[in-house]
Amino acid sequence: MQLKQIGIIHSPYKTLEEVPKSTLIENDVVCKLELFSEYELGLLDVEQASHLVILYWLDKGDRSKLQGVTPIDHKRHGVFATRSPHRPNPIGFSVVRLIEKKGNILKIGDITALEGTPVLDIKPYIAKTDLVSSTVVEWIDKIK
Amino acid sequence: MQLKQIGIIHSPYKTLEEVPKSTLIENDVVCKLELFSEYELGLLDVEQASHLVILYWLDKGDRSKLQGVTPIDHKRHGVFATRSPHRPNPIGFSVVRLIEKKGNILKIGDITALEGTPVLDIKPYIAKTDLVSSTVVEWIDKIK
Repeated sequence: MQLKQIGIIHSPYKTLEEVPKSTLIENDVVCKLELFSEYELGLLDVEQASHLVILYWLDKGDRSKLQGVTPIDHKRHGVFATRSPHRPNPIGFSVVRLIEKKGNILKIGDITALEGTPVLDIKPYIAKTDLVSSTVVEWIDKIK
Repeated sequence: MQLKQIGIIHSPYKTLEEVPKSTLIENDVVCKLELFSEYELGLLDVEQASHLVILYWLDKGDRSKLQGVTPIDHKRHGVFATRSPHRPNPIGFSVVRLIEKKGNILKIGDITALEGTPVLDIKPYIAKTDLVSSTVVEWIDKIK
């Protein structure tokens, strides 16, 4: 199972230290997703979606970690109970707002990614399957 | 960027022909996600989430396809405007309901996956970042 990099994220966050430690912190950062030109045909009709699911590769992630302390509650959790970048397959997942499409460049909001992050996939966010109401994550809800 | 299979999905859909062609069709199928025992420590506190994001590998996907005709509107779209399994990185993404956790086995609802599908990642569904209201996908909304 070998991944292909299909694009790159250009972000105002240039170093790992600048990236917010939790995606639960709000931000109004705008990034550019540059899809490599050989994949541009795949973007036909992408502009019909207001929001996209972006999958990207967290290349700084520690793939051997199975548990870790989060910056949210400072307690230990299994990595599959968190959104930590440190996990066996460090695939990042964000729901982003599509602001503009110009050729192979997508201007996107609501994402906290480091400059140069490799892009793996782009999918339309479909409310019928992706919007689920009344969900719970006890350890996160507790500290809100 | 080499992926590791961390588990396997056991599904009542035993052949590709049995799997619903669109995830927009409702079903009440229950699957079992078997996480390989060497990753079980990563499940600590997973039961605190009511819903999970599952990433899996669509090993039957045609990775050379950039456009295709969907079973929903029978029109051609770019693969990044659809949830087709045929895409450069055939990573499936589903929001599922966690019914029960027993050791390294998760019983999950609301997923349409083939028996034997390799699992790549498990994340908690967090309403604050993953639930986005008032989203649009014009070509899908049109035919509803």
